[in-house]
Amino acid sequence: MKSNFFITLEGGEGTGKSTQARLLADFLEKNGHPCVLTREPGGSEGAEEIRNLVVKGDVARWDVMTEALLMFAARRDHLVKTVWPAMKEGKTVICDRFADSTMAYQGFGYADRGLGQMTVEQIYKIVVGDFKPDLTIILDMPVEAGVARAVKRDANINRYEKMGLDFHRNLRNAFLEIEKKEPMRCTVIDANRTIEEISADIISVVRARLLKA
Amino acid sequence: MKSNFFITLEGGEGTGKSTQARLLADFLEKNGHPCVLTREPGGSEGAEEIRNLVVKGDVARWDVMTEALLMFAARRDHLVKTVWPAMKEGKTVICDRFADSTMAYQGFGYADRGLGQMTVEQIYKIVVGDFKPDLTIILDMPVEAGVARAVKRDANINRYEKMGLDFHRNLRNAFLEIEKKEPMRCTVIDANRTIEEISADIISVVRARLLKA
Repeated sequence: MKSNFFITLEGGEGTGKSTQARLLADFLEKNGHPCVLTREPGGSEGAEEIRNLVVKGDVARWDVMTEALLMFAARRDHLVKTVWPAMKEGKTVICDRFADSTMAYQGFGYADRGLGQMTVEQIYKIVVGDFKPDLTIILDMPVEAGVARAVKRDANINRYEKMGLDFHRNLRNAFLEIEKKEPMRCTVIDANRTIEEISADIISVVRARLLKA
Repeated sequence: MKSNFFITLEGGEGTGKSTQARLLADFLEKNGHPCVLTREPGGSEGAEEIRNLVVKGDVARWDVMTEALLMFAARRDHLVKTVWPAMKEGKTVICDRFADSTMAYQGFGYADRGLGQMTVEQIYKIVVGDFKPDLTIILDMPVEAGVARAVKRDANINRYEKMGLDFHRNLRNAFLEIEKKEPMRCTVIDANRTIEEISADIISVVRARLLKA
């Protein structure tokens, strides 16, 4: 049986992904699964440099295709330098955002200006191949609550946090659609609750789907 | 008849592309074709920032797929912000390097580690669509002479100039193959001659292929 996994956390701004990623890593480490905790865009030296180009600056700085290409360039560097080597060493990798974010943000967030599903999938296939998360946890909550939390957390709000509420509604719907399309890989968790309640749900999904003996 | 064109100059390091691009722009301007002279990677604010990530640093800094994605991200920004708006205004755009460089460098320069023709073509289709140069001038000269000129020109040699001679031989062959595949779009010019001789040849090709009344 497989003993190490690639687990991704997805969801809109302010849904608590990074906190939950840490709690999940703690749980798995205590249960004998050494973990690497990482994030996208970023997670390797080169990818963090690319991240700076994407996350900072004007909302309209990049056209959506350029943005998707930068995201996939960062992803490729992250996979080659961080994720794949860690998995080869038998570690479980927990990643705060992965390709579903590109699908949601660049594929659907911009509505009619978005790239759409097929284009994002084509680029994924070229860049990442058949590699996929073993489990994707989608943290879901009402858009207003999430954006308010994201803005409160950080005075220097980033490019995405500056986008309007419609953008964030499109994002939320996109993540829910992704789960409907790939229910075996994905699970939606209600993130409008306490940190402890959310974490308990995540751990029970991980137990049921990945750690079943 | 079409009165403005997208013309690209291609070839290895030190073959004199930027000098010839300038001379060609002078000729076309004098003949009533307003020109925009630009270069890749770069040619727009965002693309120049991406260029800095690619051109500087260690030879092994990026895996070849990441490098190609960064090149195409820069290309997309350059097209959206510089090339397409200029062409819409009726200007001729002369570009020092374009997608054939990605085909030669990332597709074939690294030999067995390269992405190959199909992958580069797939990414091109997704990112650029059906847009293509009206004319591509490939400046060709023996590899040793070109690299020596490039190194002499600039004490801060870049990542590509640091690659070995085999890399540059693969490049040269790749450019020659591109011309064989698309002779209607491309022309190979012997660049191991004086600046004036090369320029005269380029101008006569441009007259014959694009300015034929």
